[in-house]
Amino acid sequence: MQKFVIIVAGGSGTRMNSAVPKQFLDLKGKPVLLHTLQRFIDAIPEIKIVLVLPTAYKSDWETLCKKFNFTYPVQLADGGETRFHSVKSGLALVPEGAVVGVHDAARPLVSLTTITTTYQLAEEKGNASPCIPQNESIREVTADNNRAVDRSKYFIIQTPQCFQSTLLKKAFLQEYTPAFTDDASVLEAMGEKINLVEGNRENIKITTQHDMLIAEALMGR
Amino acid sequence: MQKFVIIVAGGSGTRMNSAVPKQFLDLKGKPVLLHTLQRFIDAIPEIKIVLVLPTAYKSDWETLCKKFNFTYPVQLADGGETRFHSVKSGLALVPEGAVVGVHDAARPLVSLTTITTTYQLAEEKGNASPCIPQNESIREVTADNNRAVDRSKYFIIQTPQCFQSTLLKKAFLQEYTPAFTDDASVLEAMGEKINLVEGNRENIKITTQHDMLIAEALMGR
Repeated sequence: MQKFVIIVAGGSGTRMNSAVPKQFLDLKGKPVLLHTLQRFIDAIPEIKIVLVLPTAYKSDWETLCKKFNFTYPVQLADGGETRFHSVKSGLALVPEGAVVGVHDAARPLVSLTTITTTYQLAEEKGNASPCIPQNESIREVTADNNRAVDRSKYFIIQTPQCFQSTLLKKAFLQEYTPAFTDDASVLEAMGEKINLVEGNRENIKITTQHDMLIAEALMGR
Repeated sequence: MQKFVIIVAGGSGTRMNSAVPKQFLDLKGKPVLLHTLQRFIDAIPEIKIVLVLPTAYKSDWETLCKKFNFTYPVQLADGGETRFHSVKSGLALVPEGAVVGVHDAARPLVSLTTITTTYQLAEEKGNASPCIPQNESIREVTADNNRAVDRSKYFIIQTPQCFQSTLLKKAFLQEYTPAFTDDASVLEAMGEKINLVEGNRENIKITTQHDMLIAEALMGR
């Protein structure tokens, strides 16, 4: 099956206290977004890339491609109001009968193994999402109290979440609800079981300046 | 109320693939454990320190005190089979009528604010534990499936977990069960409500080499 990735670079940058959206920030000499794209190109050499960007950043993207001599073909799609709408916009450029991953632009530390194993399982079973064990003590807050929960039952979900495109396109015909916190949850709302595969702990999402420091440390390893 | 901290340094170091237990590893020129102790001394100048160490590491501790000229008074207690038993061992050196925090030796990045606000609330209300929002997508794995859960209901629990010592000593008279994953859960088993306060995101527990890299990055900020 042909393989696509939809890279969601919809963040406006407000949470970074920075004029530059986080996907354009410099990480060891190259924008976060280019690190992320390179991981997919390295893992799946024939991959088709769809990049979902807020319209306001299209010219920044072109500038960046020139500056860093990035020539791999990328189709652009317009970012939407929420992640759901952004992914739907990118999905319009993906044909049926393919495998498509949806990945956060701000996760440049995804490993090649995480990418290939997740695509492979999605091709076999319809969908797959990488995850890692939640290894911190957690508490669930209830209406007027809180309680210790068994952390071994909880997994942190990462991206790329991968799907047979025919399935995902059908799922995205559903009406949006705020319960759609990620792409797997959109498929799950259609009654599909979500398959989990092992991700890599370094595959953090860069959201804050704190995360940027961590990413620099991990990237330099 | 007099203030105590029990520093739990029970780790054997096996998870670090290192002969040196993680609390003795060098972090920016000083062992993790000394960074941790210094945070408490800086936050609460009159604090009484109880250090729970595996018997095998007592001579390493003495060597380290000499090498780094660490002269603050510290009472040693023997580490036990589990965290529960280690804390109980340290608690034997704490009088009733005090406030006692229990802190992981491998959390050298706890902020002074986290320490002071947690002790203060415990003095007022009997107990307090620092926590931070769980800001990653999580899934709960059930017997034969898994489901997206509302992450806004889950908080990551840190240390120091603080208590009125009279209450905690009573809680530790209970028989050990593996459900006691932290000290708050021991008190909770007695029917007490756990009070949460805001921790600091940098306050990670160093368990792996990955965490050590992150700690170095955050410490250097």
